[in-house]
Amino acid sequence: MKAGAIELGEGAKSSTPRSTAVNKGVSVLDFIFRLLALIGTLGSAIAMVTTNETLPFFTRFLRFRAEYDDLPSFTFFVVANAVVTGYLLLSLPFSIFHIVRSSAQNTRIVLIFFDMAMLALLTAGASAAAAIVYLAHKGNTKVNWLAICQQFNSFCERTSGALIGSFVGVVLLGVMIMLAGVALARRP
Amino acid sequence: MKAGAIELGEGAKSSTPRSTAVNKGVSVLDFIFRLLALIGTLGSAIAMVTTNETLPFFTRFLRFRAEYDDLPSFTFFVVANAVVTGYLLLSLPFSIFHIVRSSAQNTRIVLIFFDMAMLALLTAGASAAAAIVYLAHKGNTKVNWLAICQQFNSFCERTSGALIGSFVGVVLLGVMIMLAGVALARRP
Repeated sequence: MKAGAIELGEGAKSSTPRSTAVNKGVSVLDFIFRLLALIGTLGSAIAMVTTNETLPFFTRFLRFRAEYDDLPSFTFFVVANAVVTGYLLLSLPFSIFHIVRSSAQNTRIVLIFFDMAMLALLTAGASAAAAIVYLAHKGNTKVNWLAICQQFNSFCERTSGALIGSFVGVVLLGVMIMLAGVALARRP
Repeated sequence: MKAGAIELGEGAKSSTPRSTAVNKGVSVLDFIFRLLALIGTLGSAIAMVTTNETLPFFTRFLRFRAEYDDLPSFTFFVVANAVVTGYLLLSLPFSIFHIVRSSAQNTRIVLIFFDMAMLALLTAGASAAAAIVYLAHKGNTKVNWLAICQQFNSFCERTSGALIGSFVGVVLLGVMIMLAGVALARRP
């Protein structure tokens, strides 16, 4: 439906070839980055969901088992990453469309807005999780929150690792928005 | 004053009048939102920095005094808000420039990129602080982090309140980026 509306507008084109070539290159880069970001966020979500650790011992304070959904921030992290993964998957066809029709404008603008929203969502999820991971590693003596990483060592390492894919996704989304901005600015 | 500025700029026009009028309206909105976001983030930073509570009693686990920099996430929150406040202040002249010259493109594109970076930074700061505020309110029995809000009641309320200005800033920055996108798409 949207594609039809664009093609209608695309109709008569007399744009400079150089500008079109640049836009095509930008679109190809966009597609690659989108795919990489998708892998990053998907990996983050899976790494976080599958994280759990059962301790061979227990103390008075600690449970036997740590799972990601023991901490609400990690649940939000998973949801944010899952939503962004789904969005990136759905946006891939649009990215391909931009490679084919490199002078498309409307879909690019729509995509830039959604990218921005996803960037904010992913940043929020990653930051909230990072704040908790930091606390799990360092603890906080001032308010008497103990570092749990001494006990749940592999749980902590896994959750810390899961942040990486998410932050890579944040950076790539930022780059994609800038690329789309360049493509829009260069339009004939 | 604002209305005067618009009427002044309306004067000599050669490009399509409707598109220019829309761009001018968008620029005025951008200026207003920028000012509101500035107030929001400045308020957040000040509210967080000035937060501290001294308890009239103490227990074995809790200190006499809670300050914002006892929690690294709150420090990051203050830094993020201060940086965004500074940026918004510096960007105000550009916003005014866009009202006067509503067909400006390059500065708009530059501003959209910086806005995006600031949006990401502010979202990160606000989310990290929100994760900690949530923990302070609810605690987490699974990992034995106690809710500190029963003790530090006014400290908790103050830090929770400080989040509002920051999240308002996030929303306004998002709206500003979209407005700038509209202005760019509509350019003559």
